[in-house]
Amino acid sequence: MSNASEVLPKLDSELEWQRALYKDLHRHPELSMEEHRTAGIVERRLREFGYDVQRLGGTGVVGILANGSGSANGSGSTVLARADIDALPVTEATGLEYASTVDGVMHACGHDMHAVALLGAAKLLADHRDAWSGTYAAVFQPGEETAAGARAMIADGLAAKVPKPDVAFAQHVMPQEAGTIGTTPGPVLSAGDSLKITVHGQGAHGSMPHLSIDPVVLAASIVTRLQAIVSREVQPGQFAVVTVGAINAGTKSNIIPDSAELLLNLRTYDPDLRKRVMASIERIVRGECAAAGSPRDPQFDYYDQFPLTSNDPAVTERVTAAFTGHFGEHAVFRVAPVTASEDFSELPDALGCPYTYWTVGSVNPERYRKAVASGTVLQDIPANHSPAFAPVIDPTLGIATSAHVLAALAYLSKQATNEVAP
Amino acid sequence: MSNASEVLPKLDSELEWQRALYKDLHRHPELSMEEHRTAGIVERRLREFGYDVQRLGGTGVVGILANGSGSANGSGSTVLARADIDALPVTEATGLEYASTVDGVMHACGHDMHAVALLGAAKLLADHRDAWSGTYAAVFQPGEETAAGARAMIADGLAAKVPKPDVAFAQHVMPQEAGTIGTTPGPVLSAGDSLKITVHGQGAHGSMPHLSIDPVVLAASIVTRLQAIVSREVQPGQFAVVTVGAINAGTKSNIIPDSAELLLNLRTYDPDLRKRVMASIERIVRGECAAAGSPRDPQFDYYDQFPLTSNDPAVTERVTAAFTGHFGEHAVFRVAPVTASEDFSELPDALGCPYTYWTVGSVNPERYRKAVASGTVLQDIPANHSPAFAPVIDPTLGIATSAHVLAALAYLSKQATNEVAP
Amino acid sequence: MSNASEVLPKLDSELEWQRALYKDLHRHPELSMEEHRTAGIVERRLREFGYDVQRLGGTGVVGILANGSGSANGSGSTVLARADIDALPVTEATGLEYASTVDGVMHACGHDMHAVALLGAAKLLADHRDAWSGTYAAVFQPGEETAAGARAMIADGLAAKVPKPDVAFAQHVMPQEAGTIGTTPGPVLSAGDSLKITVHGQGAHGSMPHLSIDPVVLAASIVTRLQAIVSREVQPGQFAVVTVGAINAGTKSNIIPDSAELLLNLRTYDPDLRKRVMASIERIVRGECAAAGSPRDPQFDYYDQFPLTSNDPAVTERVTAAFTGHFGEHAVFRVAPVTASEDFSELPDALGCPYTYWTVGSVNPERYRKAVASGTVLQDIPANHSPAFAPVIDPTLGIATSAHVLAALAYLSKQATNEVAP
Amino acid sequence: MSNASEVLPKLDSELEWQRALYKDLHRHPELSMEEHRTAGIVERRLREFGYDVQRLGGTGVVGILANGSGSANGSGSTVLARADIDALPVTEATGLEYASTVDGVMHACGHDMHAVALLGAAKLLADHRDAWSGTYAAVFQPGEETAAGARAMIADGLAAKVPKPDVAFAQHVMPQEAGTIGTTPGPVLSAGDSLKITVHGQGAHGSMPHLSIDPVVLAASIVTRLQAIVSREVQPGQFAVVTVGAINAGTKSNIIPDSAELLLNLRTYDPDLRKRVMASIERIVRGECAAAGSPRDPQFDYYDQFPLTSNDPAVTERVTAAFTGHFGEHAVFRVAPVTASEDFSELPDALGCPYTYWTVGSVNPERYRKAVASGTVLQDIPANHSPAFAPVIDPTLGIATSAHVLAALAYLSKQATNEVAP
Repeated sequence: MSNASEVLPKLDSELEWQRALYKDLHRHPELSMEEHRTAGIVERRLREFGYDVQRLGGTGVVGILANGSGSANGSGSTVLARADIDALPVTEATGLEYASTVDGVMHACGHDMHAVALLGAAKLLADHRDAWSGTYAAVFQPGEETAAGARAMIADGLAAKVPKPDVAFAQHVMPQEAGTIGTTPGPVLSAGDSLKITVHGQGAHGSMPHLSIDPVVLAASIVTRLQAIVSREVQPGQFAVVTVGAINAGTKSNIIPDSAELLLNLRTYDPDLRKRVMASIERIVRGECAAAGSPRDPQFDYYDQFPLTSNDPAVTERVTAAFTGHFGEHAVFRVAPVTASEDFSELPDALGCPYTYWTVGSVNPERYRKAVASGTVLQDIPANHSPAFAPVIDPTLGIATSAHVLAALAYLSKQATNEVAP
Repeated sequence: MSNASEVLPKLDSELEWQRALYKDLHRHPELSMEEHRTAGIVERRLREFGYDVQRLGGTGVVGILANGSGSANGSGSTVLARADIDALPVTEATGLEYASTVDGVMHACGHDMHAVALLGAAKLLADHRDAWSGTYAAVFQPGEETAAGARAMIADGLAAKVPKPDVAFAQHVMPQEAGTIGTTPGPVLSAGDSLKITVHGQGAHGSMPHLSIDPVVLAASIVTRLQAIVSREVQPGQFAVVTVGAINAGTKSNIIPDSAELLLNLRTYDPDLRKRVMASIERIVRGECAAAGSPRDPQFDYYDQFPLTSNDPAVTERVTAAFTGHFGEHAVFRVAPVTASEDFSELPDALGCPYTYWTVGSVNPERYRKAVASGTVLQDIPANHSPAFAPVIDPTLGIATSAHVLAALAYLSKQATNEVAP
Repeated sequence: MSNASEVLPKLDSELEWQRALYKDLHRHPELSMEEHRTAGIVERRLREFGYDVQRLGGTGVVGILANGSGSANGSGSTVLARADIDALPVTEATGLEYASTVDGVMHACGHDMHAVALLGAAKLLADHRDAWSGTYAAVFQPGEETAAGARAMIADGLAAKVPKPDVAFAQHVMPQEAGTIGTTPGPVLSAGDSLKITVHGQGAHGSMPHLSIDPVVLAASIVTRLQAIVSREVQPGQFAVVTVGAINAGTKSNIIPDSAELLLNLRTYDPDLRKRVMASIERIVRGECAAAGSPRDPQFDYYDQFPLTSNDPAVTERVTAAFTGHFGEHAVFRVAPVTASEDFSELPDALGCPYTYWTVGSVNPERYRKAVASGTVLQDIPANHSPAFAPVIDPTLGIATSAHVLAALAYLSKQATNEVAP
Repeated sequence: MSNASEVLPKLDSELEWQRALYKDLHRHPELSMEEHRTAGIVERRLREFGYDVQRLGGTGVVGILANGSGSANGSGSTVLARADIDALPVTEATGLEYASTVDGVMHACGHDMHAVALLGAAKLLADHRDAWSGTYAAVFQPGEETAAGARAMIADGLAAKVPKPDVAFAQHVMPQEAGTIGTTPGPVLSAGDSLKITVHGQGAHGSMPHLSIDPVVLAASIVTRLQAIVSREVQPGQFAVVTVGAINAGTKSNIIPDSAELLLNLRTYDPDLRKRVMASIERIVRGECAAAGSPRDPQFDYYDQFPLTSNDPAVTERVTAAFTGHFGEHAVFRVAPVTASEDFSELPDALGCPYTYWTVGSVNPERYRKAVASGTVLQDIPANHSPAFAPVIDPTLGIATSAHVLAALAYLSKQATNEVAP
């Protein structure tokens, strides 16, 4: 990986603007599919770096750099690297000097870090074209949190506008020790499905329950009863999550409402189990509605459905080797499959290429080790989506930038054997 | 009751403007303590009728008519009659030609009928001063639905601005046969208490329940567990209602929220039981929070607390006799205590006078009898607070207007023995 | 009631053997329909008193005393007085010197007191035949606790063997102040229905829940869900009880059983509500079985079904007057309907006569008043069926004996107008 | 493994008596620690085979065969092989010709197969002493199902009476294809803990719930609430089972009982998680008792606590190689950790030697493959502890017998390198 050794020493000079841009994006988070300011910044920077830039899917940005004989026009490899850019409807509680200035919106999942790291890698690769050949496609994807963004870019003609990649990459900051990178072949992120359930009762004055069919009691029974899917129906040790993220019914204490709404989130690694869990949810909801004497059938509306993310073993092996070569054995570990979901894999699936997805540590190492030693990681380290989620900028940003460079060069380096994993 | 026979035959000529005003108020409902338009109309009319009018408690209106030797300045009796005037945050679904024109607000409890009937009685009494003597205080009270209005009028100096009444009256339209009036001595409306409960969990990404303390599961457990208060802790046959009118937690399927909120409504006739039910609720909520490992104490905020309404037996007997004399035995029945609550009794309690409160039928008689015959009253007749609640204007409005006249004359008629019940 | 004044002064001389017999019966309780020893004692005593005695329904005993011109053969009235005699499967925990000597069986409902009081009344009436005329039928009924005894006596030909009574009486000791008697016209005891519910799951090793359909979780859901019948479906203040007295499933921690069994007890005063509650129970159980994916329909087996006990107003008025005349106004109160059930009313219903049923206080007055004053009656005074239920012998036994004499003489006294209430 | 090829061809001649003995033991199952008949048969047979036999722990039997220079007296290896011998309180429903003749007791876990297989191996090794040298200890352990047997043998002096083994073996028939053997290094059986929970209410007559604190509702709430441990508190995909195998409260429909009893079974692979699950159970039970107003602290009695069974990797590798050499690659597979528990590992842990534990298929291959093809293994193949559990005798018995011979010879064969795994 001698090419990396040409490119990466220049990282330090980039980190200065990267840190400033990270704080700027963190201060100005934008909800899914509304990342107008962010997309504008990304677009401008990519053009400055020399990329051929286009918008896709509204607030998605693709920058393409064709470099030399190995470029898209020639016979070389094409690498696609993707960063997501959207924020969450969370009220920030980090107390950071660069905390969100937008009420109720926060970069609580680190996508600001992903965006700035990929911009940094894009600039390093553009500045050191002599170290590699081929085509580099930097994809800044909107709407990851709602599973809308990858689909929007595909629907807007991604396949026609980007040369077919040989391999695709994405990464995510995680509550692990900063300075470390986690990789794994096979399933790394679960399939995720969201489900809105509406159940019907019959409203009445709060003092006349006998004139009502109480949808609050019905909804509570459903939430309680759903717990038995994971506890009793899923084989012990098999991965499945059934979360009721929201329950909402009624607005006044003395009016029994007509209906109740539940928002569920499911996570599975196994497609058969996924279907069985969905069937169990529907069976339980229908049974509880029958028990309640509900006057109308419940409604089931699935949305925000994320695919399984399963890393290609050969790609993962080559990228892991590149990481280990640069960061050292101690810094690269085999990460356990993560329970979260992503829509990243829809891009390579649509483009027909293998991919790998890795995790980047973002917690102060001293703090992390202390929490490990006292067995309080879960309590002490705010996880993604928490109002207190706060990646340390250093060394996280540098590592994440380097990781994209290393992965790209593993396929684009002039020395690299340009055989792509089957 | 010969004086009634002088006054009431004139009713028909009033009903025309009353019907128009009723439809107008129904089209323009106003939420509690925001009854600006309604109060303006009431104020203007009372002045036209010759009343001495003042505002009290913001949107409350008091009209006073002192009449002859028996007036407040003389030795006669003083009668206070009260109508409530506020509407509810309900979206009307009656399909009426004069349905609400205000999104999400509706006169779903008939207060528009109360207001127009009292205005009509006030006019009839003003137009026929020769038939009675004494003082008539027509009180149009705001904010009944939130238990804020009576308190606001009292706080604004009601006792100083109104002569001390000898007796007070209020009425309410109910889903009973139009043409009938219900009276009862003793408890007629329950005490009502609203309670906001906030319980705390620990938020996390929806795919990582083990990092959370799930407040949705906690809130559902509480709702479920609360049912056992009425089913197991209250003596069978004793009146108590514990309604969870609203449960709200979370906004997204894949974010486990930090907390959940429940809005409860309690109804009791017995003050000791009221205290025991409150204690049971708090005990259950604390126990469930302990079971869940909740990181913070739950919060209990009581609001919208309505007193017990318990009719004075002697007043009720005299007024019932007046009703029976005019409407006939068949039209006046002993009404069972109603499960709803009112803040009316705060006014006579603050002014130190006895009171009675009666119910007025508002359902088309044919429709009502059909529902009774088929045993489907509860299903077929929309009750107060229902989006489909729709009193028939005739004969409801005329009966309600007459009832106020009759009750007033029972104490103010020149022939009446001006002894007030002890 | 001058005849009572002839008979009752002799009570003191009877109480000595009555107290001894009460302790003897209390020491030797017998379960429903197995009251062989008790029936033998009763039979022997009645013969000694001069009654014509026969067995009916196995362990039921009827003693008949025809007295003078007013006897069954003449034109006089016939009074039927009934005492129940069975005990309960409860392990006594009173610590009394005369506690049960039978493991797991106890007179925890005071039927021993009933039996001895009726024997005492029977003797007093037999010893003072000159004070009355007519026919007295003393009925000692087995199996009240299981609703089997009255039916057994009727099936064994009660109507043919007893002269048609003009009126029937029964009484019950209650946790009220000893020295007091409670009477009420109309409903005094609820209808009672027992119901065995069997729900089916699928057994498996406890470590393999995914191979099971867990009937323990199903049964728990049902118990929890049933609470909402009384809390939400019954009109507030209307009397209804749904008790799950037993839940049983499984025998080992590590074997998930195939099925679960629930034993329910329902109490109602209103026949329509009774049917609605039954329908709601079945609806909830079927809904929960559907939610659980239960492989077989649940089974519903009704048993121990007790009728409503509703006192005849005229009979009650006459008997209450007799009580008040003897014990004084202070000692006789209007008792609220009791939530328990009885099969007594099946006897007068089968024989076609009106009846009244009264309650007899059995708690030390000082203790009772102290508990009332501190608001701890419910906690401090063990109720019927409690392992600690312990009527005080005096004055309970004397009052209960006198009550039967007084009620009988109200209809049989020579001075009594022998008109029976319609 | 040439020695195996000397010994195993003789298997067929043994299988005749083995099949008969298997049917005999199956017909006469004996509950844990009451295996008197079984132990007597085992003892007699071992003596016939030439073993030095002793009883240990009541119904435990140890047979020792010291063979040649490698025997316990010399420098050779010692192998301990263990079979469990107890049956379960299950009513057999197999319809087999040789079904249990003991009401409510059944060999529903295949221990009869284990016993007969080990007896067969013991005889083969005794009959072919020239093929091996060292010491063979055949241990027939009582009371596996209650975790009492291994402890009883250790308490009775196992360590003093048996030469210290170099390695220990045990096997178990499983619902997998007959003819196959499953092995795995590391955790193969979970830790298992049983827990009796007693919660207290306050009894009352079933018609007076307000005088009670209902332990049935309390117990149901606990069962329901416990489901959230696995569904919400355990990391998705981590192995944990919380089964409520039994819930028992009350005996009559109309008596609210004083208390309720739950029997729980926990399974875990991770000792930290095991402690956390226990703490969560206790927290939930205490919280629910507080919510119910329970008058006394709940009681927690742990029993039947089984250790983790974690196979030594080196031992497992050597034994797996022996199996593969004899049965072929196709017949030996890596078995997934089983969710059940065992007390076998207490023996090697007490004796200080490594061990391995393997599984033996017991389902007719055609039936098994059909079920796999139709995806109905779970429904169609009765698992251990099921009333329908019925291993096919052939080839199960022969395979299980051979497996013990092969494992023994892997350490005792004259050709074997007598190095034992560290």
